[in-house]
Amino acid sequence: MSGRLISLEGGEGAGKSTVLAAARARLEAHGIDVVVTREPGGTPLGEAVRALVLDPALAPVCPESELLLMFAARAQLVREVVRPALAAGRWVLTDRFTDASYAYQGGGRGQPLQRIAALEDWAAGLRPDLTLLLDLPVAQGLARAGSRAAADRIESEQEAFFERVRAAYRARAAAEPQRFRLIDASAELDAVRAAVGAAVDAFVAVADRR
Amino acid sequence: MSGRLISLEGGEGAGKSTVLAAARARLEAHGIDVVVTREPGGTPLGEAVRALVLDPALAPVCPESELLLMFAARAQLVREVVRPALAAGRWVLTDRFTDASYAYQGGGRGQPLQRIAALEDWAAGLRPDLTLLLDLPVAQGLARAGSRAAADRIESEQEAFFERVRAAYRARAAAEPQRFRLIDASAELDAVRAAVGAAVDAFVAVADRR
Ligand SMILES: Nc1ncnc2c1ncn2[C@@H]1O[C@H](COP(=O)(O)OP(=O)(O)O)[C@@H](O)[C@H]1O
Ligand SMILES: Nc1ncnc2c1ncn2[C@@H]1O[C@H](COP(=O)(O)OP(=O)(O)O)[C@@H](O)[C@H]1O
Ligand SMILES: [Mg+2]
Ligand SMILES: [Mg+2]
Repeated sequence: MSGRLISLEGGEGAGKSTVLAAARARLEAHGIDVVVTREPGGTPLGEAVRALVLDPALAPVCPESELLLMFAARAQLVREVVRPALAAGRWVLTDRFTDASYAYQGGGRGQPLQRIAALEDWAAGLRPDLTLLLDLPVAQGLARAGSRAAADRIESEQEAFFERVRAAYRARAAAEPQRFRLIDASAELDAVRAAVGAAVDAFVAVADRR
Repeated sequence: MSGRLISLEGGEGAGKSTVLAAARARLEAHGIDVVVTREPGGTPLGEAVRALVLDPALAPVCPESELLLMFAARAQLVREVVRPALAAGRWVLTDRFTDASYAYQGGGRGQPLQRIAALEDWAAGLRPDLTLLLDLPVAQGLARAGSRAAADRIESEQEAFFERVRAAYRARAAAEPQRFRLIDASAELDAVRAAVGAAVDAFVAVADRR
């Protein structure tokens, strides 16, 4: 069976990083060899870009630069980690991928969708096979995220920004129901983990027969 | 008189950084208010990107990421420095600009020209009014550059890479003779400075009458 790319998406505090381990464990229970990564980051270059793009001391960053930096990290991740893993039959599980650019740099910052789509084509060049969108009301996510470390440059945005991010994510999920699974992330953590596990199981069952 | 953008271009060791002061002095002698900058860099974000893109420890960097990082720095420079200066009637003199992406990421790395052109349109959104191309044989430039500090990631390329860079620069100059002035940078420094000064004088004389 060839490799698959699975992304976890959602706004701040949705629980992506928290439920990642559950998704991984479920894949491994199926005997799948999993590579876990995150965006922006996942390579030495990408992690350096991440530090830079999230650094509050470097604000203001114009929307064009933010979009280009996200894709610079992504291009490297695809070539250094994702493609080699998929080619070796391994599965890749990533905490965010290109949908985050559509949601944050597109919905949030107003960068034109066709500009993002062009970058997706040549700089990423591949799409997730499955995307788990952890969806919850913005205020609830921000309350959860607020109990973490100090806010980075993007986490410091206004609530209206995150409302646009959420709307963009939901619009993408509605437009691509085959690829997306919308998960109610406002539920208790055990329920979210169970929903993530069930989505993974269902996907593996189908992927197996491809 | 509205502002103008002048770029200095050329390969490693051509003398761009060395003759910049002469170009600036000549502009100021005409009573022009000059902002000097460089690429990649020129803003806090851009200088952080520069450090990252030139860092030998972060190699390998895929060509797509290198191109995106250069334009991330450029987009910020245009919005934070170049456009405000031009709008205020100041002139901007920059050590490299978009032609360097065509030469290094296009000619050197083989990134498609129409990909670079699309980025130029939306991420830079403006072109120099005058470009001084300091041209000299690759071996001579590398010998000069070799006497400087330790080579950065791009300076560490093979000679064939720099031959492609030079050829791409020369092709651009040939294609846009109105904008480019080709300067023989293999000459003695005083002669190069005189050629740069003469090109600046001639441009100012015409710009004055616009
Ligand atoms: N379903 C949940 N219910 C309650 N708290 C949660 C839930 N999911 C995550 N959390 C908590 O919310 C915070 C943010 O979760 P995190 O996984 O870091 O979110 P994300 O990576 O999506 O920004 C963490 O403190 C986490 O323990
Ligand atoms: N025309 C010239 N003749 C001899 N040496 C030069 C000349 N122009 C520059 N140099 C020297 O070559 C080295 C590289 O010049 P530099 O201005 O740093 O090049 P660049 O910025 O184009 O890479 C410096 O040591 C500089 O003093
Ligand atoms: Mg997280
Ligand atoms: Mg220089």
